[in-house]
Amino acid sequence: MPDRQRLILTAGANSTGYAAQSWRLAKGGPLAFADPAHYLAVTRIAHAGCLDAVFFSDHPALWANPAERPLHSFDPLVLAASLTAKIPDIGVEITASTSFSPPYELARRVLTLDHLSHGRVILNLVSSFNPAIAANYGDAPLPPRDERYRQAHEFAALLKTLFNSWDLCRPADPQRSVWDPSHAQAIDHRGEFFSVRGPLNVPRREDGGPILAQAGGSNAGMELAAAHGEIIYTAQLTLEGARRFGDQIRRRAVSLGRAPDAIRIVPGLVPILGRTRAQALERHHAITNVDGEEALLARFAHEIGIEPSDLDPDAPLSEAVFPSSDDQQRPVGFTQALAELARLERVTARQFVRRVEGGHRVVLGTADEVTADIVHWWESGAVDGFNIQVPVLPDDLTEFVEEVVPRLQDRGLFPRHYDGQSLRRRFNLTSPETTAITRLDRSA
Amino acid sequence: MPDRQRLILTAGANSTGYAAQSWRLAKGGPLAFADPAHYLAVTRIAHAGCLDAVFFSDHPALWANPAERPLHSFDPLVLAASLTAKIPDIGVEITASTSFSPPYELARRVLTLDHLSHGRVILNLVSSFNPAIAANYGDAPLPPRDERYRQAHEFAALLKTLFNSWDLCRPADPQRSVWDPSHAQAIDHRGEFFSVRGPLNVPRREDGGPILAQAGGSNAGMELAAAHGEIIYTAQLTLEGARRFGDQIRRRAVSLGRAPDAIRIVPGLVPILGRTRAQALERHHAITNVDGEEALLARFAHEIGIEPSDLDPDAPLSEAVFPSSDDQQRPVGFTQALAELARLERVTARQFVRRVEGGHRVVLGTADEVTADIVHWWESGAVDGFNIQVPVLPDDLTEFVEEVVPRLQDRGLFPRHYDGQSLRRRFNLTSPETTAITRLDRSA
Repeated sequence: MPDRQRLILTAGANSTGYAAQSWRLAKGGPLAFADPAHYLAVTRIAHAGCLDAVFFSDHPALWANPAERPLHSFDPLVLAASLTAKIPDIGVEITASTSFSPPYELARRVLTLDHLSHGRVILNLVSSFNPAIAANYGDAPLPPRDERYRQAHEFAALLKTLFNSWDLCRPADPQRSVWDPSHAQAIDHRGEFFSVRGPLNVPRREDGGPILAQAGGSNAGMELAAAHGEIIYTAQLTLEGARRFGDQIRRRAVSLGRAPDAIRIVPGLVPILGRTRAQALERHHAITNVDGEEALLARFAHEIGIEPSDLDPDAPLSEAVFPSSDDQQRPVGFTQALAELARLERVTARQFVRRVEGGHRVVLGTADEVTADIVHWWESGAVDGFNIQVPVLPDDLTEFVEEVVPRLQDRGLFPRHYDGQSLRRRFNLTSPETTAITRLDRSA
Repeated sequence: MPDRQRLILTAGANSTGYAAQSWRLAKGGPLAFADPAHYLAVTRIAHAGCLDAVFFSDHPALWANPAERPLHSFDPLVLAASLTAKIPDIGVEITASTSFSPPYELARRVLTLDHLSHGRVILNLVSSFNPAIAANYGDAPLPPRDERYRQAHEFAALLKTLFNSWDLCRPADPQRSVWDPSHAQAIDHRGEFFSVRGPLNVPRREDGGPILAQAGGSNAGMELAAAHGEIIYTAQLTLEGARRFGDQIRRRAVSLGRAPDAIRIVPGLVPILGRTRAQALERHHAITNVDGEEALLARFAHEIGIEPSDLDPDAPLSEAVFPSSDDQQRPVGFTQALAELARLERVTARQFVRRVEGGHRVVLGTADEVTADIVHWWESGAVDGFNIQVPVLPDDLTEFVEEVVPRLQDRGLFPRHYDGQSLRRRFNLTSPETTAITRLDRSA
C-alpha cells in the first residue's frame, strides 16, 4: 500500500443496476428490485471483492416510468440493517434527505445501525430537489435551493451533536445507577429550522459514529460538503476537473477549520467491460438497449433537444450545449461536469456518448484498460477512490470483482482481506472533529 | 389445537427487561441494553420457545432516570430488521408514533421490513402523550388527546392505503415495461393532518402486509383499536375486565363493518417464577430491588401518595385510590385497570402488590401455577393470547420458555414448531379488509 490513504471502492447497489433498462438483463428477472435475495446476492459479491461498502442512493417517491427499473424502492436504511446482519465486514452507505426527516429520528436510526453493524455506516445526506418527493410529505412546495441548503447545514450539525449527546460511562456509584447522568444532557438546539431538546436516547459510539457523506455539486452543495462531508461523492468526467473539485472542497474545509485529510473525494465510475474492446462496445449497446452507435448518437441528440440529422457526430461539442443554473431542478453537479468535459477535452458527440451514462463517467474496455484507468486517476492524487456504478446487477459487479479487483490487488492498491475494523478506522477518518466529545459538565 | 384461533404468545424484549431495576440482575451486565448481542440472545430464546414475536415498545426520548434501565434506546424497526435477518420464523412487533413520523416514510420502512422478513411484522401504532418526546420533535406542545387520536385515525387509514397503493403485476407488454402503470397510481390523500400524493414506492405484499396493533385503553384509544387494530395490547388485571374489554372492542369493530374475528385481544402478563411459591416471592423482591413485602407495601403507599404508616395492608382498597381522566398524561388504560381490580375483586394492598407491576398483571408462582393461569384465561375465551413481560432479560425469558411453554405444548395449546407461514397467515388474520386491494382503474 502506498503511504497516502488507501484507495476506497464502493459499489452502487440500487435496484437491478445503474442502467435504466437493466431490468431487461438482470439475472434475477425484471422484478429483482423488489426481491430481498437480489440485494443479498449483490452484497455478497461486493464482499467477495473486499469492497468497502454498498451504496444506496434514494428518492422517496415512485419514479413512475415503467420503461425504467424502479431505482428506489426498499427503504435503504432498513435494507442495510438486514444486509449488515447477514454479511460481515462490508460497509453500507445509505442516503437520507435533510428536507423531510425529523433529525432526532434519523440520528437515532442511523446511530442504531452503526451500533448493530459495529461501525459500518456511511450516511449520505441529500437535500431533496424533486417536487414529486415533496408531494409525499405534505402540501408545501419545495423551498428554494439556498433555504434547503441552510436547512441541510443545520441538520448535519444537529446530527453530529445528537450522535455525541450521550456518552455512556459507568456511574460514580454503581449501586445506585446504570449510567452517569452528567454525560447525558439536553442539547437544547433551537435553530432556524429545528428545535430538539435531546439528548439522543442512543449512546455515542466510541470511534465517532457514522461517517457523513455528501454529494452536492452546486455551490451550496460544495459548502455543505466542505463543512460536514467526510466522503464526497461527485460526478467527475475529467481528471483535471476532479483535481480542481477536490482542491476547492479541501480549501473550503480548511478555511472552516477542518483538516484537509478529513475529506475523501470519491467520484462515480461506470465500468463497461468486455474481453475485447469490441465486446465492451456491444455490451454498451445491450445495457442501454440501443441498436448500435448511431442509436446512441440519436439518443444524445434527443437529450440536448436537436434533430439527430442536425448533429455532426465528429465535431467538438460546445459547452453551451450544457447550460446549468443554481435554480435548476436536477443536480447542478451533473450538468457542470458535462460542460467541463466539452470545455476541457473538446470531445465530439461520438466520443461523448462513450464517456458518460446517467451523469457519471463511463470507462469502457477490457479489464486491463479499466484497471489502468483507475490506477491512472488514483496515482494522479486527484481522487481517493471510486463509487463503482455497474450497469446491471449482479452480473456486471461479479465481472468487476473477478476481473478488475484482482488486478488492483496485484498492484498492491487494494486489500485482499478486511481488517476487522470499523469503516471510520479503515478509512482513517479519525480527525479531531469526529472524535472529540463535548463533555457536558453540569457545573459549566 | 382447539377449533378457535390459536393462542398467541409474544415477549416484551426491551432493554434488560420489564423490571425498572432489571439492569442490576441482567446476565449481560447493566449496559446490555446497548449491546446488539443481548437482543440477539433474547430473540434466540424466544425463537427456541416458538413464540410468535418479540415486542419492542418505544419512546423516542431518553428516560433520564439513571436508577432505572433505559427502556428505549435502539430504534425498534432497525433493531428488528437486524434480528429478523439473523433469526428465522419469529415475528417482530415494533412501536411507532402517529404523532411525529411522516406517514410516507413510516409506511415505506415498515413495508420494506415486511418484505425483507417475509411477512413477520406487527406495527404497534401509538399516539405520543409525553411532552419529553414532543420536545425532541420541535417547539409545539402536544395537542390534546382527541386531536392526537383524530391524527392517529387518519395516519392508520393512510398507512393501509399506502401499503396497498402499488400492486406489482406484470405489464401487458413485457418488451416495453417492467410493471403495469395502471397498478401504481397516486392516492392523492388530503386530510386534516396529512397530504400525501403517493403511491408508495414499495410494492404491496400479497397477503396484505404488516399487521396493525393498537394499545390505547382510553375511549379514543378503543375507537382506534376498533377501527384499525388487529392485535390489541391491553392492561387487564381481572378476567371479567378482560372479557368486557374484548366484547366492547369487537362490538365497536362490528359496528364499523369489521369482522369480529379480525381482532385479537392480547393482554400483558408478568410471570414471576420460582420452583416453590416462596422462591417466587423472593424473586419478586429481587427483581424489584425491595427488601421484602413491607417494602413493597411502602412503595405502593408512596405511589398512591399516602404515608406507609397510614396504609392498612389488609383492608380492601377503594377504587377511588386510582382516579383517571381522559385528560391525564399517562395511559388511561393502566389507571382504569387498577380501579377495576379494586372494584371487581376487592383486593387488599397486600394482595395488590403481588398482582401488578408497572401496570400489567403479575402471575407469581411455580411453572404449574403460571401455566394454569394462562390456561384458565385462555379457556375462558376472554383473550387470544398474552404479551409476556418478563422482569429480567434474558434469564426470566429462558425460564418461561423452558418451564411454561412446554407445559402449554403438552396441553396442545401452543405449537412445537413454526409453520413457515407469514405472521398474518399464522394468526389467520386474513379478513377481507386486509386482503382486498383497491384496484385503481384509470378509466374510473
